[in-house]
Amino acid sequence: MADRATLTRRGLLVGIGAAGGAGAMYAAMGALGLAPAEQDKAFTPPRPGDFTLKGRGAASVVVLGAGVAGLTAAYELGKAGYDCTVLEASGRTGGRNLTLRGGDRLTELNGPAQDVRFGDGVYFNAGPGRIAPWMVTMDYCRELGIPIETFVNTNAAAYVHTNGRTVRNKTARADMYGYIAELLAKATHQGSLDRRLTKDDRERLLEFLRRFGDLGPRLAYEGSERRGFTTYPGMGGGTEIAGPAGLHDVLAAGVGRAITNDFGYDQATPMFQPVGGMDAIVARLTEAVGRDRIRTGARVTSITDLEHGVTVAWEGGELTADFCVATLPPHVLAKISHNFGQKVTTALKTPVPVAAGKIGLEYGRRWWELEDRIYGGVTETDLDITHIWYPSYDYHAQRGLLVGYYNSDEAAQLYGALTPEDRRHRALTQGKKIHGEKYRSELLSSVSIAWERQPHLQGGWVRWPSFDSSFTLLQRPSGRVYFAGDWLTHLVAWQAGAMESARSAVTQLHQRAARSA
Amino acid sequence: MADRATLTRRGLLVGIGAAGGAGAMYAAMGALGLAPAEQDKAFTPPRPGDFTLKGRGAASVVVLGAGVAGLTAAYELGKAGYDCTVLEASGRTGGRNLTLRGGDRLTELNGPAQDVRFGDGVYFNAGPGRIAPWMVTMDYCRELGIPIETFVNTNAAAYVHTNGRTVRNKTARADMYGYIAELLAKATHQGSLDRRLTKDDRERLLEFLRRFGDLGPRLAYEGSERRGFTTYPGMGGGTEIAGPAGLHDVLAAGVGRAITNDFGYDQATPMFQPVGGMDAIVARLTEAVGRDRIRTGARVTSITDLEHGVTVAWEGGELTADFCVATLPPHVLAKISHNFGQKVTTALKTPVPVAAGKIGLEYGRRWWELEDRIYGGVTETDLDITHIWYPSYDYHAQRGLLVGYYNSDEAAQLYGALTPEDRRHRALTQGKKIHGEKYRSELLSSVSIAWERQPHLQGGWVRWPSFDSSFTLLQRPSGRVYFAGDWLTHLVAWQAGAMESARSAVTQLHQRAARSA
Repeated sequence: MADRATLTRRGLLVGIGAAGGAGAMYAAMGALGLAPAEQDKAFTPPRPGDFTLKGRGAASVVVLGAGVAGLTAAYELGKAGYDCTVLEASGRTGGRNLTLRGGDRLTELNGPAQDVRFGDGVYFNAGPGRIAPWMVTMDYCRELGIPIETFVNTNAAAYVHTNGRTVRNKTARADMYGYIAELLAKATHQGSLDRRLTKDDRERLLEFLRRFGDLGPRLAYEGSERRGFTTYPGMGGGTEIAGPAGLHDVLAAGVGRAITNDFGYDQATPMFQPVGGMDAIVARLTEAVGRDRIRTGARVTSITDLEHGVTVAWEGGELTADFCVATLPPHVLAKISHNFGQKVTTALKTPVPVAAGKIGLEYGRRWWELEDRIYGGVTETDLDITHIWYPSYDYHAQRGLLVGYYNSDEAAQLYGALTPEDRRHRALTQGKKIHGEKYRSELLSSVSIAWERQPHLQGGWVRWPSFDSSFTLLQRPSGRVYFAGDWLTHLVAWQAGAMESARSAVTQLHQRAARSA
Repeated sequence: MADRATLTRRGLLVGIGAAGGAGAMYAAMGALGLAPAEQDKAFTPPRPGDFTLKGRGAASVVVLGAGVAGLTAAYELGKAGYDCTVLEASGRTGGRNLTLRGGDRLTELNGPAQDVRFGDGVYFNAGPGRIAPWMVTMDYCRELGIPIETFVNTNAAAYVHTNGRTVRNKTARADMYGYIAELLAKATHQGSLDRRLTKDDRERLLEFLRRFGDLGPRLAYEGSERRGFTTYPGMGGGTEIAGPAGLHDVLAAGVGRAITNDFGYDQATPMFQPVGGMDAIVARLTEAVGRDRIRTGARVTSITDLEHGVTVAWEGGELTADFCVATLPPHVLAKISHNFGQKVTTALKTPVPVAAGKIGLEYGRRWWELEDRIYGGVTETDLDITHIWYPSYDYHAQRGLLVGYYNSDEAAQLYGALTPEDRRHRALTQGKKIHGEKYRSELLSSVSIAWERQPHLQGGWVRWPSFDSSFTLLQRPSGRVYFAGDWLTHLVAWQAGAMESARSAVTQLHQRAARSA
């Protein structure tokens, strides 16, 4: 539970403690046409009144998996008084929403366990780490009273490391934009675009290009203070970073991905994170569902869809409920004994699990802030570590934690196959190319995760060969079994996908239950 | 004073309570070549040992003005035991670093006073509002134990309002980049740039342009999911915002400034702010200097530079100190009786005061988060309000405060000449063009500031016609009088300028005092 004092200081946070307050207000806003302009998907959470008016109690639901999809489903169903039981194979709730802290122990399939030795206040979001503002995840943070803060996803002062060369992001951007502007200005000037551009167009384009590329009076790119300084302006005008290199070298540097990373609708600035660790979402959802409704260590062994209910068996127990919401990864679910029929089984086997890995590197000194003036953000590389993330929290504290790699597919498989020691060694060797010897010598501790080696998950996320009929088939129930998970949405690998999918399953289930009530 | 519990939770924050700890460590780092790579200006704070080794007490210094420059100078001098007295004309410390809260009262020259009626937790940074990570302001936040958080300076979801049309920043950017990429790709394809580009260059350029503009297979811009959605992807693929308009209309929209705003070295993402209000810097500096050393309500009437000291008189008192650090705005200082000589007086009259204004608009509902999904950031306009800032703190709280205009020069003069009621009315009329009727109807309260009408300041900042010999003349002492302030640096209008300048004055003064001791 979030600190009450903090909440009070933050004013009347919507939805805290007031049963139905935020959810009901939000639903009412939707009805009034006031819901977020960009997020106008209809979702009306089930309400107790939906049943009691009809003189029948709510149905029972067995939810398979206590990840974000399972918890969200149980939370929304619980609002209407459904009798939910959540079965979770592992010893904890949250699924891939996993925040590691000192004292935690991380186990892997066919690998040694890692004891996490981070200092007080240091945490590592081993799974999801950022939230886009349009995502429904933000609505749950608001509704559940989870304080959020900015996740710096783009940092002009972070580095770009490509083809063995390291430059600041802002330097790479200024040079690329400068030369693009110059080339287009010249082409415009030469009249080769006359068929496309009127005289007014040309003037406006040139005005924009001057600004966009910081071009000189003769429409040439001659460097720019945007590239950064070795000594910033102060009493004097400062000393700009030497350069730029010529057009050929700038093009050859291959910085394209790095400087366009935040253009995507899912990666645009700003992004957000819960204060204190992503698992605040898990903690609050778990509490809202009720710990007594969640049975951990319950690995499901069979699912039988019957005419009037669903029977689920696990190692050591069995129960029959009116409905089932199955939120396990499709490749795991497909292997559990079931009677969904061949089409559903084939559909469950269609998405391909993707390997994904991360390493948390704890340092006793935030040298990236002190020496590199990097406060949060991401260094993009063409190395197998792909990214280095700098922490967007506890700025200026003593210790801090970098994400030393966050990769997927082949690169993740490569790291995942190594021992934790060898992963760390490889990650440090790569990061040292950017940050120098301190990257290795000042390390305090580390922990790495290979999601494809996590029990009951066996993958970071899935990839659909195409969003075909298998995908849409599973968005509908198989008898009394509803499927949910990020893997059933166009937001694969995002918590928002898990939540949207849970809402969809809940809505379909509730409409059916209310109809038959 | 910052909350001790907070500080403890944040770990061993550098410099808290440990006299000389951070400063000394930092200076030592500099000596070892470990100082920030981008911020390697030599600054060694004066230390008590500098005097006691020579058997003489520290000199006395009278500091004129308790703004950021004056407080920084007194703070650094105080580290070495200088006997400082700070004279401040107004009733408070901070100068233009001003954070307004409920219960405050704001007075203006020749205008009515405004009573601030904001609710608990709502604040308005009426002066400086953001800090770039390379700025020395960050070092003072670290050294003084002031918690910082991200100031969202660029938000892809915020709006651009130009020529009467409102679009999301991301939409404006996607369209402009898309067409630029298309035009350059076509020019490249047509061979009109053959003289500049080798075959390899061309291929790399095209690869970049495809990514940069999200071009289609035929190198044409046909819209992009980067533009945003009316319904974001979830169970379905989402519905993209209609468009784009044609090349001519996109060029005519004039969004250039808005989408290149964060390219500058002083505006690049990320930026930062102290938690709880910018005046945390004032509060901690004031405390570190010692309230007993600061005399408020002391409007200086004459400054006399003597052979062995400086005599300063104010309404109701007079003192003579070994040295003086004068941090008043140059146009204010020039009008005070003094004996600096004609060259210095002329130099002080050279920079031109600039009008600047802001209005804080308090709402009872954070509709920009709930409905527009705008969490922090800036909407850029070609209206006289120039910008609208959304708050980068207390996300999801009940109330919130927008900056409804932040303008300078002619636009600021226009607003500054109005009554507070008329300023609000005009600001609401403009903002309504972007946000609709709620912008006006849901307002709770407001307060506006016209810096050119603030007593003892009479301007937002200054503009130097050129950084000429007058500028450099004032960077050196006039007899025993040292000048300081953002106006003496290339960081005019930034607190970092005030701090850099204070450090320069302190260094020069201390070298002289230590030499003569």
